[in-house]
Amino acid sequence: MIVTRLTDMFGLSVPVVLAPMGGVSGGRLAAAVSNAGGLGLVGGGYGDADWMAREIALVREGTRKAWGVGLITWAVTAATVEQVLASGPSAVMLSFGDPRPFGRLINSAGCRLICQVQDMDGAILAQEAGADLIVAQGTEAGGHGGARATLPLVPAVVDLVAPTPVIAAGGIADGRGLAAALMLGAHGALIGTRFYASNEALGSARAKRRITGSLGLGTTRTRVFDVVRGYDWPEAYTGRALKNRFTGRWHGQEAALRETLPAEKAAYLKAVAGEDCDTAVVWAGEAVDLITHVEDAATLVARLGQDAETWLAHGAQLLR
Amino acid sequence: MIVTRLTDMFGLSVPVVLAPMGGVSGGRLAAAVSNAGGLGLVGGGYGDADWMAREIALVREGTRKAWGVGLITWAVTAATVEQVLASGPSAVMLSFGDPRPFGRLINSAGCRLICQVQDMDGAILAQEAGADLIVAQGTEAGGHGGARATLPLVPAVVDLVAPTPVIAAGGIADGRGLAAALMLGAHGALIGTRFYASNEALGSARAKRRITGSLGLGTTRTRVFDVVRGYDWPEAYTGRALKNRFTGRWHGQEAALRETLPAEKAAYLKAVAGEDCDTAVVWAGEAVDLITHVEDAATLVARLGQDAETWLAHGAQLLR
Repeated sequence: MIVTRLTDMFGLSVPVVLAPMGGVSGGRLAAAVSNAGGLGLVGGGYGDADWMAREIALVREGTRKAWGVGLITWAVTAATVEQVLASGPSAVMLSFGDPRPFGRLINSAGCRLICQVQDMDGAILAQEAGADLIVAQGTEAGGHGGARATLPLVPAVVDLVAPTPVIAAGGIADGRGLAAALMLGAHGALIGTRFYASNEALGSARAKRRITGSLGLGTTRTRVFDVVRGYDWPEAYTGRALKNRFTGRWHGQEAALRETLPAEKAAYLKAVAGEDCDTAVVWAGEAVDLITHVEDAATLVARLGQDAETWLAHGAQLLR
Repeated sequence: MIVTRLTDMFGLSVPVVLAPMGGVSGGRLAAAVSNAGGLGLVGGGYGDADWMAREIALVREGTRKAWGVGLITWAVTAATVEQVLASGPSAVMLSFGDPRPFGRLINSAGCRLICQVQDMDGAILAQEAGADLIVAQGTEAGGHGGARATLPLVPAVVDLVAPTPVIAAGGIADGRGLAAALMLGAHGALIGTRFYASNEALGSARAKRRITGSLGLGTTRTRVFDVVRGYDWPEAYTGRALKNRFTGRWHGQEAALRETLPAEKAAYLKAVAGEDCDTAVVWAGEAVDLITHVEDAATLVARLGQDAETWLAHGAQLLR
């Protein structure tokens, strides 16, 4: 077993946090990760109240271990945060935006505040918000994120926010990445894409097959899926997704996409409903090279922990 | 001491390779790194015969340990490689392009072939060339490179080319990064920007001060310095440099820069001669956050080794 400040904080047996992927990390997946010894976070996304009520009910039914909810900071209100807090999570994670307006609300509910940041300025805001844990997320991550890469970002954030513990995110899909995160001074890893390709994840079987069949160079950071869906993301954030026919047509042509939006949006929504991954987005990080099979979340958590232990023991054996 | 296949191959006491930075990694720096227990590589760059003759003479005078030379694959000829081989290096490193035309020449001279790659296709070419070591270089690296990030790239390349040993490059500037590289399955780290900010590095004191005073977000991947200098780099490679007035003016305006090239090139060369870093390029990787002082190369190599050892020992202590 690996013991870190993350595992101490939530009583985990593996220093792994499920990334709260919107529409993917439902209550069933979060519960499976928590039951396996990690920390499952439900992907609250833009704060859809009905979706959250359903998925939070599932995670509450599914596990007696610690679990949490992740929200998109710029898209939610205090009312959303209060709805989440009322359901009794052990942690709320805020990503993408200024977390300070919600910090006291979360802290005073006796809930741990996790803030995900993409650069040094964000790390300072997270500290000011009263974060118990800071996730330093690299650009190789799937879904929304920033420009800095995980390997140099994590130790820089660790130094900046000490003694607040840091978790590494972006590009981690196996025990090697988890062990590397610990060497960078992080206390664990937040993992998304690897859990997307799990049996418990929401999202279509076709999307999961695309992930297991793709290479890292087959992903790209883009705004086209936000444009077509009508989400007004702040300039600093793009989303990493699998390249497909839609990115091939519109990436770099965002102004033209905006001009034909009503028609393109209708076609896009139809593709989503039909699980047509040539048009619909499949968020995925660069670590897809390391993901070859859809598996149970419990199997993934166990292997992440065991392989990281093996690598840490191997590291000590390199010393003479 | 950390023992890996890299340290065994060259008799090193620290699993660190000096990146052969063109115009920066001269013979004096390479010798200092080799004498301190790493592997010093002279930055042969585009293959300027006079520059190489002078710097190779310096490394030969400066150390009795193993040393090598790095070359830009697409820019050099067999004659350049033969000139280098005649000087008796322990290793020749080829980066950026197809190494296969030079593989047999280098192998048959009893010299180790190191190939630096940026993606999976490059790794396959490196194996076909007969590489003894493959450097997997992430996009966070300073200078020329590709699009994939180090943390997910390294384990993917390790799996692809096994049993050929892999070295990690890009975003590594301290013992934490080196220890993380070893957890990813690499046998050491190739480090550039950290050694640029050393006393022995060629390059101006002003450039070194810019590096110690910059943040990772202050770097960018760009083609503008290649355009203005008239180097015809293949499309796949951009260069990571500190943002300055020149990138602010021309990045994204490369076609316009080409149109005014004679005048801009003259002004650029004048800025280089005058060590004016508002215009002249300072290649630098994202790990500049971790670089705060210009130091002796020997101090850097020793600290990299010692800190990595401390972190590897710490990793084993996390196990219960």
